[in-house]
Amino acid sequence: MSKTTLANIEKNEIIDDLQLEGLKLIQKADGFKFGVDAVILSDFANVKNKHRVIDICTGTGIIPFLLYGKYKPTEIYGLEIQEDMVEMAKRSTLLNSLEHKINFVNEDLKNIEFLKTLDKFDIVTVNPPYKLNNAGIINPSDKLAIARHEILCDLEDVICASKTLLKDNGRLFMVHRPERLADIFTLMRKYKIEPKRVKMVYPKLGKAPNIVLVEGQRDGGAYLKWDSSLYVHNEDGSYTKQIDEIYGRL
Amino acid sequence: MSKTTLANIEKNEIIDDLQLEGLKLIQKADGFKFGVDAVILSDFANVKNKHRVIDICTGTGIIPFLLYGKYKPTEIYGLEIQEDMVEMAKRSTLLNSLEHKINFVNEDLKNIEFLKTLDKFDIVTVNPPYKLNNAGIINPSDKLAIARHEILCDLEDVICASKTLLKDNGRLFMVHRPERLADIFTLMRKYKIEPKRVKMVYPKLGKAPNIVLVEGQRDGGAYLKWDSSLYVHNEDGSYTKQIDEIYGRL
Repeated sequence: MSKTTLANIEKNEIIDDLQLEGLKLIQKADGFKFGVDAVILSDFANVKNKHRVIDICTGTGIIPFLLYGKYKPTEIYGLEIQEDMVEMAKRSTLLNSLEHKINFVNEDLKNIEFLKTLDKFDIVTVNPPYKLNNAGIINPSDKLAIARHEILCDLEDVICASKTLLKDNGRLFMVHRPERLADIFTLMRKYKIEPKRVKMVYPKLGKAPNIVLVEGQRDGGAYLKWDSSLYVHNEDGSYTKQIDEIYGRL
Repeated sequence: MSKTTLANIEKNEIIDDLQLEGLKLIQKADGFKFGVDAVILSDFANVKNKHRVIDICTGTGIIPFLLYGKYKPTEIYGLEIQEDMVEMAKRSTLLNSLEHKINFVNEDLKNIEFLKTLDKFDIVTVNPPYKLNNAGIINPSDKLAIARHEILCDLEDVICASKTLLKDNGRLFMVHRPERLADIFTLMRKYKIEPKRVKMVYPKLGKAPNIVLVEGQRDGGAYLKWDSSLYVHNEDGSYTKQIDEIYGRL
């Protein structure tokens, strides 16, 4: 590890190599680490070179870095409410010399007036907190809890923000849990983001799906396409060829 | 074939053996034949012996006969708008000596005032027409078209009728197409039937799903459970063990 790299990280942080165009990401050693969700969302998102993209609930910034590495869109923003996470994500841009391509913004996605000051985006991506905030006592300063539970924003906030951020016919790409799919569809329709494509993800064949990928289009026409599904693990616990291919496309 | 049996059928009709407790069903030789949809819906529906059940869009009456054979519920109704189909379904009850257990009613499910005159049901089942009525010129006297396209009723009519027919906390079991799932969830919520369980059905592994089974509960609380999925065919085109087991449970 070079001196430059070391200078960028703080105590209790680690640097992960994304295995994608030499990109690196700073994460908290004891915090929320990116997982298969971020990787499969980046693969599912249909981003073009010409697109302006924003990732909301961006956390460490993993999704903007993966999208940059895979698609090289014109401009990428990451929006995050937690100031220390944004500061860390900005240090990841410096570490990758991408401070002119990826812009992290410290703002609350519920601040619709602020969102309206931004130019509209072709693409919104989001890996939001999955769980309803009804699971009893949660420490609101617990970053793992904030990443997982709807403490600082809920699904409706996320979809309302997406509507505000998207151009007409712009696309929202979301990764979430199947048990929230009725909420996702009804809220997308409420905010005029039409569900257009779904991909179910199974931990392995024979199990119930545990991840869902959803694409919506702002003011899109009603037709919902289902992709073939993704199976993460083989019977023996190893990654499937499908997952190897997605990681290989990183 | 016995003389009695022959006496019950008309020209251009056939009698199918349901391979279930000796049950038989009269169908039109050139009409809509029941298929895997009706069989997997009967398997998915959680019907108890004590239940009062109604199948809407019942057509030939296949689902009431399958439900009777599998679950022996207290009472089963079948509702159908096409008079000649109801007349044929009634002859199927005579053929099976079930005229005191299965009651076919010739009525339009859009006639909410009529539906309100019936005692409430524990269970509604439905295998409705799947396709939006926007596919161009359709002959409205074509029974195949009526079975497949939303000509005489649409999804909202079906869900509104289900709401009217169900007891508080009663269950709706529906088989439909995955591309309509956003419509299904939003309409179920509109009519206070909460989506509670989903099972995706794939023609084979590696393909997109082509059938969806949905369970809703009138005034139910929000939690959507996903079952493990069903695969109909093996790679070589034969039925999977899952399908053999469902047919075996008939």
